[in-house]
Amino acid sequence: MRIRRKVYREQVLSERSDLLVDDPTIYQGNWKKLLNCDNLHVEIGSGKGEYWRQMAKQYPTSGWVGIERNLNIAAIALNKTEVGSLDNARFIANNAQALETWFANDEIDCLHLNFSDPWPKRAHEKRRLTYSSFLDVYRKLLSKDGLIIMKTDNQGLMEFSLNSLKENGYKLLENSSDFRAVSHDEDAITEYEAKFMALGQPIYRAIWQVVK
Amino acid sequence: MRIRRKVYREQVLSERSDLLVDDPTIYQGNWKKLLNCDNLHVEIGSGKGEYWRQMAKQYPTSGWVGIERNLNIAAIALNKTEVGSLDNARFIANNAQALETWFANDEIDCLHLNFSDPWPKRAHEKRRLTYSSFLDVYRKLLSKDGLIIMKTDNQGLMEFSLNSLKENGYKLLENSSDFRAVSHDEDAITEYEAKFMALGQPIYRAIWQVVK
Repeated sequence: MRIRRKVYREQVLSERSDLLVDDPTIYQGNWKKLLNCDNLHVEIGSGKGEYWRQMAKQYPTSGWVGIERNLNIAAIALNKTEVGSLDNARFIANNAQALETWFANDEIDCLHLNFSDPWPKRAHEKRRLTYSSFLDVYRKLLSKDGLIIMKTDNQGLMEFSLNSLKENGYKLLENSSDFRAVSHDEDAITEYEAKFMALGQPIYRAIWQVVK
Repeated sequence: MRIRRKVYREQVLSERSDLLVDDPTIYQGNWKKLLNCDNLHVEIGSGKGEYWRQMAKQYPTSGWVGIERNLNIAAIALNKTEVGSLDNARFIANNAQALETWFANDEIDCLHLNFSDPWPKRAHEKRRLTYSSFLDVYRKLLSKDGLIIMKTDNQGLMEFSLNSLKENGYKLLENSSDFRAVSHDEDAITEYEAKFMALGQPIYRAIWQVVK
């Protein structure tokens, strides 16, 4: 089973050069040229790519880069995306720890964090994608007035993030304690998110602007 | 000039029975039947009707009732709206103090307050549309889980409103300190609002849910 999955994964990854960027460092500073856009969106932790794919379709004049470090899941994301269906998108199957080597300063206009791993144990808080060490990197890579948009079902992670971004000088623009209680056609709903909605559980969302 | 304006006003008001509801009490409890909708939106203080008109066009399956007490301005709102262009909307040219006689309990799904008069003097705070006496009326008229959406350029009014709705048991769902820093295609931008945006002044917006 492990071998079969590995074969599947490698086959998908090798065949999807239309979307998969093997070495993202070669586009550093040039993503907007590559994707022919003025507005670059980057999602860290794209999973099966549902949000990335839907948003890239809904906003074809923006560029959309999805990042997923789990290769098996990245392969699923690519496999679910029709060849040639997204000119304005790319996918990186790698660990976002290397973000600074992939994007130039001021290059990203909007960073999306959707249902990120909450790492609930205090001992693991440095792994949360809104920990201050990550926020320092985002600040460099975000453009002037660039945004971080975060969505989660995890109240603890949202509380941590609200504090962390405040302490790190980001400006809170929007804060929703029940994002799906109101219609938001501008934002894609993933299957994962729909499950929480079906259970009546609130989705938390916040938008911050970088101050630099 | 005063006479000419009066004549214009009376002529417009008398000719626009397609939109203008002379006696709103006759539809109490039946607005959704009248407008053939499941979702009733009511805006208090519609001014020249730009928001009401744009939103009614953008959401044709919802019902939209605009209210403006100044008859001259109400006449402008009607005059700017093409005859027969809005099947799902009506306009009330009267003082919203009588709201309870126009709508039945649980009838309104979403109440909009756009750029309401801030009544900045403490002595006038009872006139603010988010004063507790108004909130008591809204609570009756709003449906289960019904919403109040407020937008303003006036920070003082927003602070007052956040406190007032909190004290009166409404649940804050969304809070924006700079609503137009992020794209919000789902919400119409009026000329009045665009002026603040052009000046770089923030628009404050909040959404509350009634708890009943």
